[in-house]
Amino acid sequence: MAGGGSDEVKLLGMWASPFVLRVKLALSLKGVGYEYVEEDLKSKSELLLKSNPVLQKVPVLIHDGKPICESSVILQYIDEAFAGVGPSLLPEEPHGRAVARFWAAYIDGTLVKASSEASMAKTEEEKAEGKKQVAAAVETLEGALRDCSNGKPFFGGDTAGYVDVMLGGLLAWVNAADKMKGVKTFDPATTPLLAAWADNFGSLDAVEAVMPDESKLVEFAMAMHARAAAAAAGATN
Amino acid sequence: MAGGGSDEVKLLGMWASPFVLRVKLALSLKGVGYEYVEEDLKSKSELLLKSNPVLQKVPVLIHDGKPICESSVILQYIDEAFAGVGPSLLPEEPHGRAVARFWAAYIDGTLVKASSEASMAKTEEEKAEGKKQVAAAVETLEGALRDCSNGKPFFGGDTAGYVDVMLGGLLAWVNAADKMKGVKTFDPATTPLLAAWADNFGSLDAVEAVMPDESKLVEFAMAMHARAAAAAAGATN
Repeated sequence: MAGGGSDEVKLLGMWASPFVLRVKLALSLKGVGYEYVEEDLKSKSELLLKSNPVLQKVPVLIHDGKPICESSVILQYIDEAFAGVGPSLLPEEPHGRAVARFWAAYIDGTLVKASSEASMAKTEEEKAEGKKQVAAAVETLEGALRDCSNGKPFFGGDTAGYVDVMLGGLLAWVNAADKMKGVKTFDPATTPLLAAWADNFGSLDAVEAVMPDESKLVEFAMAMHARAAAAAAGATN
Repeated sequence: MAGGGSDEVKLLGMWASPFVLRVKLALSLKGVGYEYVEEDLKSKSELLLKSNPVLQKVPVLIHDGKPICESSVILQYIDEAFAGVGPSLLPEEPHGRAVARFWAAYIDGTLVKASSEASMAKTEEEKAEGKKQVAAAVETLEGALRDCSNGKPFFGGDTAGYVDVMLGGLLAWVNAADKMKGVKTFDPATTPLLAAWADNFGSLDAVEAVMPDESKLVEFAMAMHARAAAAAAGATN
């Protein structure tokens, strides 16, 4: 299957979602054209509810009228359905594909999980534990990058691939959160490969073209935190 | 890549693990020969620690000296590395593959998660909530089976595929837990398709060949519960 005309590919998304960003990154890196539809998550469209009745979440990719849900599933779909268009996200040989899928699962199952637990931590003890878990996951990913990249800039080698996109989707949020907290998650002192990776990935033309505006993201995050704090303090909505 | 001689495929497992069972099921359904190595999880082998340094868990498949970890990753690897051997687990066309991956992710992300939360519930309220979540996930899977199977017996259609193996790995535990509690998770009254699926899947020769003994599993589960109860009561190990 080839193609990629914007008339047949539609992405239902929300501009600040790291999971939607993954799909934008994959489509951009492969050069697949698409129509983007911004969803209001407080009032989801009929199309979203019909396309993803189980999770009712973005991103949803609709290709030739058929919906595909879950960012990691969508990325693999894009790689397979547009195999003839642009660079491949996954390598061809089965072991390389398995290694990429392992790290993709690690990013969601360990790094994203630890980050979201850390962000919901209430006590100082929980916060410290959350930070420790995130740091440990980042350190593990530094080792993964060393092993996968073989001295090349990306998890995918010379070009950004599946793992790069899975992690790269989080990059805008990592950068925004770092700016708010005055920290450096991919610290050149402790994780030099990931720090260089973040610079290299972030400056790819295909990536710059779809990255959300960082200051807008900081503003969005601060408003979100304020709402959460107000809710925790028992304020009414 | 073809092959499947038992000299080149090794599975590190633990007999009662539903995730290991998935790999056994996939190898059995495809007819790939392998050497099975039972691990003592209280004293993990050097080979396990070296092959899965990040998670240190079974199952690990070692093929031509290269380790592959995580059951869902291993199943896709088996399908790709032994593409010429036996039936395919995933369909060929991209949308069907995406749908299968979506339901595989749902089984681990929703059903397994809800079951494990339910089993760790302490209060009656938590137990009731856990049961409700499991029942909702099973009901959703009934709908998935209706949509995927198209009137055929398996998620994969006429033959058991990726989703069948992902869910089928849990079947021995579901049956053992049902027996202990006197319930029916895949109840013919409420989820007739899944109830028939469980019978059909469980009576395939390739499945019967690798299913663990149910009474041994009940015994194992009861010993596990007793240890957990003793620990909760403050007894020493």
